[in-house]
Amino acid sequence: MTSRIAVLPGDGIGPEIVEQAVRVLRALDLDLELTEAPVGGAAYAAKGHPLPEDTLALAKRADAILFGAVGDWKYDSLERALRPEQAVLGLRKALGLFANLRPAILYPELANASSLKPEVVAGLDILIVRELTGDIYFGQPRGVRTLADGPFAGDRQGYDTMHYAETEIRRIAHVAFQAAAKRRGRLCSVDKANVLETSQFWRDVMMDVAREYPQVELSHMYVDNAAMQLVREPKAFDVVVTGNLFGDILSDEAAMLTGSIGMLPSASLNASRQGLYEPSHGSAPDIAGQNVANPLATILSAAMMLRYSLDSASAADRIEAAVQSVLAQGLRTADIHEAGTTRVSTSEMGDAVLKAL
Amino acid sequence: MTSRIAVLPGDGIGPEIVEQAVRVLRALDLDLELTEAPVGGAAYAAKGHPLPEDTLALAKRADAILFGAVGDWKYDSLERALRPEQAVLGLRKALGLFANLRPAILYPELANASSLKPEVVAGLDILIVRELTGDIYFGQPRGVRTLADGPFAGDRQGYDTMHYAETEIRRIAHVAFQAAAKRRGRLCSVDKANVLETSQFWRDVMMDVAREYPQVELSHMYVDNAAMQLVREPKAFDVVVTGNLFGDILSDEAAMLTGSIGMLPSASLNASRQGLYEPSHGSAPDIAGQNVANPLATILSAAMMLRYSLDSASAADRIEAAVQSVLAQGLRTADIHEAGTTRVSTSEMGDAVLKAL
Ligand SMILES: CC(C)[C@H](C(=O)O)[C@@H](O)C(=O)O
Ligand SMILES: CC(C)[C@H](C(=O)O)[C@@H](O)C(=O)O
Repeated sequence: MTSRIAVLPGDGIGPEIVEQAVRVLRALDLDLELTEAPVGGAAYAAKGHPLPEDTLALAKRADAILFGAVGDWKYDSLERALRPEQAVLGLRKALGLFANLRPAILYPELANASSLKPEVVAGLDILIVRELTGDIYFGQPRGVRTLADGPFAGDRQGYDTMHYAETEIRRIAHVAFQAAAKRRGRLCSVDKANVLETSQFWRDVMMDVAREYPQVELSHMYVDNAAMQLVREPKAFDVVVTGNLFGDILSDEAAMLTGSIGMLPSASLNASRQGLYEPSHGSAPDIAGQNVANPLATILSAAMMLRYSLDSASAADRIEAAVQSVLAQGLRTADIHEAGTTRVSTSEMGDAVLKAL
Repeated sequence: MTSRIAVLPGDGIGPEIVEQAVRVLRALDLDLELTEAPVGGAAYAAKGHPLPEDTLALAKRADAILFGAVGDWKYDSLERALRPEQAVLGLRKALGLFANLRPAILYPELANASSLKPEVVAGLDILIVRELTGDIYFGQPRGVRTLADGPFAGDRQGYDTMHYAETEIRRIAHVAFQAAAKRRGRLCSVDKANVLETSQFWRDVMMDVAREYPQVELSHMYVDNAAMQLVREPKAFDVVVTGNLFGDILSDEAAMLTGSIGMLPSASLNASRQGLYEPSHGSAPDIAGQNVANPLATILSAAMMLRYSLDSASAADRIEAAVQSVLAQGLRTADIHEAGTTRVSTSEMGDAVLKAL
């Protein structure tokens, strides 16, 4: 059966890194139908909206979405509803992609790239499970209003609503517990239960779901402490599960611990295992079109796609082994280049992965 | 004129570290009236409430509050309103302590303590200005409700409200711009304006206040990126200003970059320069009563108190110089001890600071 993949390259370095991942997918002899469509700033420029109807329809029909990156300074002055990021939020919401899996892995060959001491990060392998369709991201009511009374009567006030329903917490909890059960068996749920009602409720539901997973050890940590412990002793973590807002912050912090965010893939899944796969890094408009960006995070995202949405774990293994092999050969794009290794371009890195497949 | 200081030691290591700071204050020959009162778990144990009325009244009357730390596992199962942290939140709210100043400074002598590479953190000197009485910490409505309709109808839902009024943003902006003007002239405002209405409003007001400070260079950064950049290149920051929730996370992350959180003081000020001064670290119940905790963050908090609330900059300078001197002498409590330095107890560290004064 043909698997349908929507290819959304986006802005900045998006097109050139996605191109390499597409080459890798095509080389695998799988029955894939790849269809490209514009998204983000590129879609706004072409069609007046960052997530045009055709693109959204294609994404909905697809078994999986291979996504590059969106965003460019050019679009910074647009009203929020038309900015590139809205495409990301729109896709998540429309497809119900509630489970964001963000591995933070430090490849032994790249230990020097980290700003942390090698002994603190060598062998790092954390999985951050971030809830992606709830929380304060989509909560209503929100806006700017004028206060009628209280200490700031007459003032304008910006406001947003954070919330989580029990069903939303349960389903992300199951994803996280199952991931932890397949890994080292430890799950840390991060919240701010000492201050937030949403967090206390989150914690209560997590504890309830935990009873179904006796093989997983659940712990709880406040988000401020988690931000500290990630810096102090990141290897103490196995799987972290948290809400959309805290997950946004902590998954980026964890990614940066590795110093090689150009290597980190991500998956955003819904209940029917349809998924959006994208590198953890952004669109880097400053280096776009120069053939210097690192395509490996996108290539590894394609591997995650094969594993989670297309049931092709063996093809995913092949890609991951090929990436390991190019690293072992000493090939490095500019972002991870150091003395004693061979600097290659985006397309040369793609060539090397194809050869290693 | 006598300055009135409320001394609130709290829980865990609070009493022993505050004791050393009190010794230092008494040694300065200033006209200070120090009055002690229970707070946190200790107050709950003694009087049934973490912030008893007498303690609150004392704090309100005081020119400044010297605070230790609150929290102990013993109180974890209490309902939220009676838990030790409520004392912290209650004092902030009752006294209007909206401006939290959290320096993250790495003393050259302690560069090895960091989990980051020395070249990344040596000479680090960031000031995080966190708004402390607004945001989602106190926002209403909040609670747990049952949903009547929508995709999760019938579900329970936890919810909170994030908000900032213009006046709240303006006053913290002024504190931050003034601090930046006295330092290296750079202010980075951290928000999540690509997602939150509160943040877009925050950003708009920041830009407006910026026009009064042409000598300060204002930049904006999303909170996820800030969490990354603090790890990647922390020395790129001078002053960071942000809301209560993001400030909670980022100030702890920044503190941990130094690896010596036992050295970091903090100040929480209101509009009349009344302030609460406390170490950035917590109550560490695991080492309480053992005379091993580091009292320097509390002693340096007393110095901040003299500078910001009691107009005694020269006395503050004396304390800070004395702390520098004990570090130069190689004296270290357990948390910052390393080979080649002399390990001392809490009270011995206090002795040494007194001697160096
Ligand atoms: C672009 C932005 C809306 C998005 C988010 O905050 O979720 C991004 O930071 C991410 O993490 O994918
Ligand atoms: C104890 C807790 C409520 C508090 C906060 O979140 O503000 C603490 O983490 C802090 O930063 O002082």
